[in-house]
Amino acid sequence: MAKFDVAAAVKTENDLGSHLFLGSRHLNMKVLIVGGGAAGATAAQFARKQDRDAEIIVFEETHYPEYSRCGLPHALSGEIPSFENLIEFTPEWFQRNKIDLRLSTKVSDIDVHRQELKAEGKNGTTAEHFDSLVIATGAAPSIPRIEGVLMNERLRDGVFQFRSMDDAEKLKDWCGRGKRKVLVVGAGLVGLEVAEALSKMGHEVIVVEYLESVLPLMIDSDMAEPLASAMANSGLKLITSAVVEQIIGTKEIEGARIKRRSDGKNEQIDCDTAILATGQKPSTSLVQRTSCKVGRGGHILVDMRCETNLKGIFAIGDCSEYKDFVTGAEMPVGLGTLAVRMGEVAGRNAAGGDSHVPKGFLGARVTRLFGLEIAATGPITSSISNEVKTIQTRTKGSTLPPYYPGGKDLLVKLTASADDGRILSCQIVGEKEAGLRIDIVSSFMLGGLTVGDLAKFENAYAPPVSPCVDALAVAAQAILIKLARAKPG
Amino acid sequence: MAKFDVAAAVKTENDLGSHLFLGSRHLNMKVLIVGGGAAGATAAQFARKQDRDAEIIVFEETHYPEYSRCGLPHALSGEIPSFENLIEFTPEWFQRNKIDLRLSTKVSDIDVHRQELKAEGKNGTTAEHFDSLVIATGAAPSIPRIEGVLMNERLRDGVFQFRSMDDAEKLKDWCGRGKRKVLVVGAGLVGLEVAEALSKMGHEVIVVEYLESVLPLMIDSDMAEPLASAMANSGLKLITSAVVEQIIGTKEIEGARIKRRSDGKNEQIDCDTAILATGQKPSTSLVQRTSCKVGRGGHILVDMRCETNLKGIFAIGDCSEYKDFVTGAEMPVGLGTLAVRMGEVAGRNAAGGDSHVPKGFLGARVTRLFGLEIAATGPITSSISNEVKTIQTRTKGSTLPPYYPGGKDLLVKLTASADDGRILSCQIVGEKEAGLRIDIVSSFMLGGLTVGDLAKFENAYAPPVSPCVDALAVAAQAILIKLARAKPG
Repeated sequence: MAKFDVAAAVKTENDLGSHLFLGSRHLNMKVLIVGGGAAGATAAQFARKQDRDAEIIVFEETHYPEYSRCGLPHALSGEIPSFENLIEFTPEWFQRNKIDLRLSTKVSDIDVHRQELKAEGKNGTTAEHFDSLVIATGAAPSIPRIEGVLMNERLRDGVFQFRSMDDAEKLKDWCGRGKRKVLVVGAGLVGLEVAEALSKMGHEVIVVEYLESVLPLMIDSDMAEPLASAMANSGLKLITSAVVEQIIGTKEIEGARIKRRSDGKNEQIDCDTAILATGQKPSTSLVQRTSCKVGRGGHILVDMRCETNLKGIFAIGDCSEYKDFVTGAEMPVGLGTLAVRMGEVAGRNAAGGDSHVPKGFLGARVTRLFGLEIAATGPITSSISNEVKTIQTRTKGSTLPPYYPGGKDLLVKLTASADDGRILSCQIVGEKEAGLRIDIVSSFMLGGLTVGDLAKFENAYAPPVSPCVDALAVAAQAILIKLARAKPG
Repeated sequence: MAKFDVAAAVKTENDLGSHLFLGSRHLNMKVLIVGGGAAGATAAQFARKQDRDAEIIVFEETHYPEYSRCGLPHALSGEIPSFENLIEFTPEWFQRNKIDLRLSTKVSDIDVHRQELKAEGKNGTTAEHFDSLVIATGAAPSIPRIEGVLMNERLRDGVFQFRSMDDAEKLKDWCGRGKRKVLVVGAGLVGLEVAEALSKMGHEVIVVEYLESVLPLMIDSDMAEPLASAMANSGLKLITSAVVEQIIGTKEIEGARIKRRSDGKNEQIDCDTAILATGQKPSTSLVQRTSCKVGRGGHILVDMRCETNLKGIFAIGDCSEYKDFVTGAEMPVGLGTLAVRMGEVAGRNAAGGDSHVPKGFLGARVTRLFGLEIAATGPITSSISNEVKTIQTRTKGSTLPPYYPGGKDLLVKLTASADDGRILSCQIVGEKEAGLRIDIVSSFMLGGLTVGDLAKFENAYAPPVSPCVDALAVAAQAILIKLARAKPG
């Protein structure tokens, strides 16, 4: 059948707001935004929506306008034809919205009291006054202490990090020159997405992870098992609980030495390429000499308005941290979705609005790796405070009723408060539809609903679409039984 | 890659409850259940879970144990290999759970005061006492007043209804004997699912609908347009706003006469088969001579415990009606999901438990038809009371970010209260993932969240899975803009 084109079928109202500006007016308020990534560009967009007259300048260190960082592994693999496809806010978009985008321009200093910053660009150093300032400087990959990764204080040839479009293009170029044997250091989201991309491109890939399981910040170790199996089935080698100690080779990379954490034994790995994917550090050098408060990990602390302790100065995205919805603890904002949510709020507020983010972030997350969709909301189990008494089940469901062909298994791990049944977290692994189910759980959590409500959830049901009683309700029912069992009497 | 088998990967806890019985004990309490469909069988299941010692008898008029009615069109088309695949509760299951399933047994009378019923089965008529009774007698297709559909007070050869497995098997047999020209009377869910099945089987199909659009009880007419187009693209003929007046032909069916409602003109349609799909009537003859309260449409009225006005007598599924979550009005329970939810509650309560359904049902619903997934939650627009001031948008989104290949359009119609932003209903049409998104909206509605919350919703995002800002948030943002515009100042 013909492609379903809604636009052709019926007029929609998406563009309703494109020419509408809300809120109070200011006489040429000046909003400066440092960083033109997802957070910064979104802040600029909503500052403009908030105030049609404000002067808005975005300073971006690189020569790229905003692009989807999350899309980089998919452009590396070729699923997305070109890196340029990832650009979401084009220079023309900025122009059309009368936002002054200054690429290749580094903000070198902020004077909080004089409300002024210094920017170094193609035309030398300029000073700019601001009425409000949005800091969206992001983060930088952390370089692990491994012997032999640096040469002249820079990453040596064959060693890569993977955060920016430049990083991805360099890696693509390197890997385009021949079949590589790649060591990926770190089995977090970035490490595994790059590992899969390179594997799809025909390179040999070995992943080494310090902790005991893959995606250790995203899902519990028991939920990571199916992924580890899927990686093995795809021909990747995975070594967990091991430290990469040295990249070997004087000119070219000839291998790597690792140490198993269990017995301290060394092992040599054959590789000619290494990718460092061991996490990131917030880029907050700009505020170091100010009284702007930062958390233990160096992330800038903000309130519900995304405002720092300094009035009129906002911080958003990867350089900031905010409260976890479930635990209330400060958590680094390491997700593109949150960068965008904060960008909207900070942008509006910087232009005179009064917008706020929810009382905390769920950290809802999803990825597709090696044929599996892996999704979660709420903290991983080890991050849920010991003060909360929890109850947890791991159940199996399917995307379709048992009698309908093509159903895919869903493994659901659900955690609730043993006191009041409030849902605290959920992790789902399956071949598909894990992410949207996590969105359902997130919605329950936001609404303060319990596992009792989820057990009775009235999901939309049709045999070719979904089961009559969804896998989530099955999980909730299992929790209820455990809860009832745990109660005396 | 190998099929992902969760069960093999990790032990799950689905079976936690299978040997666990909760609640208080009764000395051989006797629970009778009339009707062994989804509602009745589920009631039996949960009566047993509630009380391991209760005597439980299920009376079922047909010779089939419980099967999925919703699966029938898919077994007709052959997507599901055999009708037998649809059986969910087998006779062995009943035996294992010590539930006395009496097939081909019709309950002919209930004596409410003596707590007794009469059942006519293979072994003649028996009387059974009950402590509690669950009425799950379902509904029967209504036969529209069309000249020539009956012969000797039965449907003539070539005229079919489509509710039971018998109906479906008869139709399959008839259509297996040659290529048919089929007139489907009624473009509701049953009519269209059968129309698609027959069309896939190679038969010529024409659908005639009295109202102006397809699926008129499920979605608004504007949201039905893409489906009407998809039907046309699939080669089906659709005539809306027309009445079928006569089935023509003395021995065999030679055609049908229809009347256009717009101009009253008659037209003759070429067909040799007619399927009546104009809705259903609750099967409640059993309670007619009792003081059991029924609604205007003849459905049995129940409370949150699924109990009728007669203590100890419960009614569930298609024979009952219950409150609409949004409007509070009584609505017929015409969904398998609700039959099962009520079955659990009534089953538990009939066996001495104290369980309840939510304060109202959302009526969440989904189908897949002609390449489109069509889903909705909350009342269609015409059923939302005029006393509520509503605000509504229709927006377009996609299942994936714009830069990732393979995204499918999603048309979203969202309705909220203009007073407090509470979400009242949502309808989604797209090639896929409409149903799970409706589940997200349902969750928001259950939690009492607003379009403001939905606009900021933190969906799980990854380029191959979902967009950074979901189509639902886009819809909510459009509503917020309309709301702001509508407010003075």
